Amino acid sequence: MGGVSHIAVDWGTSSFRLWALDRDGAVLAERRSAQGLGASGTEGFERVLDAHLDALGIGEGVPVMMCGMVGSRAGWVEAAYVATPAGLDGLTEKAAHVPSARRLIRILPGIAQRGAAGADVMRGEETQLLPLIRAGFEGIACLPGTHSKWVRVEGGAVQGFATFLTGELFHLLRSASVVAPSVEGAGQVDPAAPEFAQGVDDGLAAPELLGNALFRLRAGWLLEGAKPDATLARLSGLLLGAELAGAARVAGRGPVALIASGAAAALYRAALARAGFGPVTLHDAETCVRAGLHAAALKAFRLERITA
Amino acid sequence: MGGVSHIAVDWGTSSFRLWALDRDGAVLAERRSAQGLGASGTEGFERVLDAHLDALGIGEGVPVMMCGMVGSRAGWVEAAYVATPAGLDGLTEKAAHVPSARRLIRILPGIAQRGAAGADVMRGEETQLLPLIRAGFEGIACLPGTHSKWVRVEGGAVQGFATFLTGELFHLLRSASVVAPSVEGAGQVDPAAPEFAQGVDDGLAAPELLGNALFRLRAGWLLEGAKPDATLARLSGLLLGAELAGAARVAGRGPVALIASGAAAALYRAALARAGFGPVTLHDAETCVRAGLHAAALKAFRLERITA
Repeated sequence: MGGVSHIAVDWGTSSFRLWALDRDGAVLAERRSAQGLGASGTEGFERVLDAHLDALGIGEGVPVMMCGMVGSRAGWVEAAYVATPAGLDGLTEKAAHVPSARRLIRILPGIAQRGAAGADVMRGEETQLLPLIRAGFEGIACLPGTHSKWVRVEGGAVQGFATFLTGELFHLLRSASVVAPSVEGAGQVDPAAPEFAQGVDDGLAAPELLGNALFRLRAGWLLEGAKPDATLARLSGLLLGAELAGAARVAGRGPVALIASGAAAALYRAALARAGFGPVTLHDAETCVRAGLHAAALKAFRLERITA
Repeated sequence: MGGVSHIAVDWGTSSFRLWALDRDGAVLAERRSAQGLGASGTEGFERVLDAHLDALGIGEGVPVMMCGMVGSRAGWVEAAYVATPAGLDGLTEKAAHVPSARRLIRILPGIAQRGAAGADVMRGEETQLLPLIRAGFEGIACLPGTHSKWVRVEGGAVQGFATFLTGELFHLLRSASVVAPSVEGAGQVDPAAPEFAQGVDDGLAAPELLGNALFRLRAGWLLEGAKPDATLARLSGLLLGAELAGAARVAGRGPVALIASGAAAALYRAALARAGFGPVTLHDAETCVRAGLHAAALKAFRLERITA
C-alpha cells in the first residue's frame, strides 16, 4: 500500500483499532477487531499487530504509534504514567519504546493523579484529549465509557480528573445481577425513551437511593410486568444521573466538551441537557484518538508535515 | 427422634437451614447446607427436604413450615405475595400448601409493595419480623443481606419498605469488576478497620461520588499499593455508607431494630453508630426467623402450645 506514512493504533481492554495514515493524517486504510488485551496477551501482541499490517500490505519500516491499555502492566510494554498536571505536548517524549526488529513502535503513556485529589488513572483518554488541547481547549471534558472520565484542562495540561465506574456497573447489573432477568432481550437504549429521562432525573435527584432504585427494577418487572427495553433504559438513566450528580459536585454544571461516539454520545448528550449542564460541544471520540495518535507520530518519528 | 413437634425451614437462594423444634420452639436438631434454589430445583425440592429429615430420623406426619425464596416463582410452590400494609399475624392463612403424601408442608408468603411508594418485594424477611411484631414492635427495622431491607412497622403491620442492592453490589464488585484484583486474597472485613470507617463517612457524605470512589479503589491499588484487606474494608464501608444515606432519607435517623447475624451485624452496628442513627437494638436474624417459623407453625398446624 502506497502513501502510508505511519500507523495509529488504539488498543484497549476489549478492542483493537488500527489506521494507516498519510502525512496529513488522512485514513488510507483501517482494521478493527475484538482482540483486546486478554486475547492479544495470549496470542502475542507483536503477532496480532503484524497480522493486521500484513493484511494491509504495510511493509517493514513504517512506524507505529499506539495508545490505550496496551501500555499497561498487563499490556505489551508498560508505559509509565505521567503525573498531573500533565502537559499533553510532552506525552510523546514519555512514550514507551517497544523492541522490534521490523519497525519503530511507541506506546503513549497514561496519566496518574495522586495526592489530595485522590488516586486516579487514565490510559487512552489522554490521546483523545490531545487534539483539543492542541487547539487551545480549556475547561471540562467528559469522556464516557466503561470508566467515564471527567477532566479539567487548563493551560494546555490535564490538571485533574475523576473516573466513574458507570459503564462497568451497567454491564455487571444487566448481565450478572438480580436485575438481569428483567432486561433480558432488551435492545439498545433509546435516548428518547421516557424511562431513560425519568431514570436520569431520579439518579440526579437522589443518588443516595441508587441501590434501592436498582432493586426496584426487578420488583417492577416481578409485580408490574415492566418491559425489558423500558427497564434497561431506566437502568441506564439511573446510573448516568448518579454520575452527573457526582460530576456536578466535582466539576460544576458549566460548559462540557463531550468526547464520545455512537450510542454513548447520544445518551450523554440527552442526560447532560436534562441535568442542566452548560453548552455541550460534541467531539467524535474516534476522530479525536486518531488525531491524537497522528500528532504524536509526527512528533515522535520526526515526519515531515505537509500541512501545519 | 422423639419430642419433635414440627420442622422449621428457611430456604433461600443460596442456603438451606432446617430446625426440628419441640412445642416450645426449642431446637432438638438442625441441618444446614448450601442447597439453595438452583441446586434444589435441579435435584428436586422434596428429595432435598426428605434427605435432611431422613438424616435426622424424622418420621412421616411431622409438619413443616418454610419461608424464603422456596416460595418464589422459581421455587417449589409459589406463595403469592401479600400486599402492604401487611399484618403479619395474617401471613399464616396465606401460606401456600405444598402437595405431599407424607406430611403437611406450608410456605409463608412474601410481601409486595406497589403504588406511589414504588414497587418492592421481600421473601423471608417478613418471617424474621414476625416475633418482633408479635412482641409489639413499632418503628424502623433494618435487615442486612444480599438485598438489605429497611422496613416501617406500625400497628402490627409492615406499612412500607425499601430494598437496597448493597450486598449484591459488594459481591459483584469484589469478584467480577475492575476492583477485583485490588481485593484478591482479602479476609473478612474488620468493622474496626479505619478504612471501613472512612468508607462509611465518604459514602454517607457523597453518595453521588460512589461510582468515582469505587474506581479509585483500583487506582489506589495501582498507584499507592493499597492492601487488599484495607481496600475491601473501604469498599464495604462506601457501599454501606451510601445505603445509610438513602435509608436516612426514606426512614430518618431514629431508633433502628437491627435484625442481623454474624459479620453483617457487626458491620451494620458500627456503620449505624457512625452515621448517627438513634439507639440500635440488635436481634439475631437466625433466632428471629426460627421464632417466626415456630409461631406460624403453631398457628397453621393448630399445635397445642405449652407456653403462651
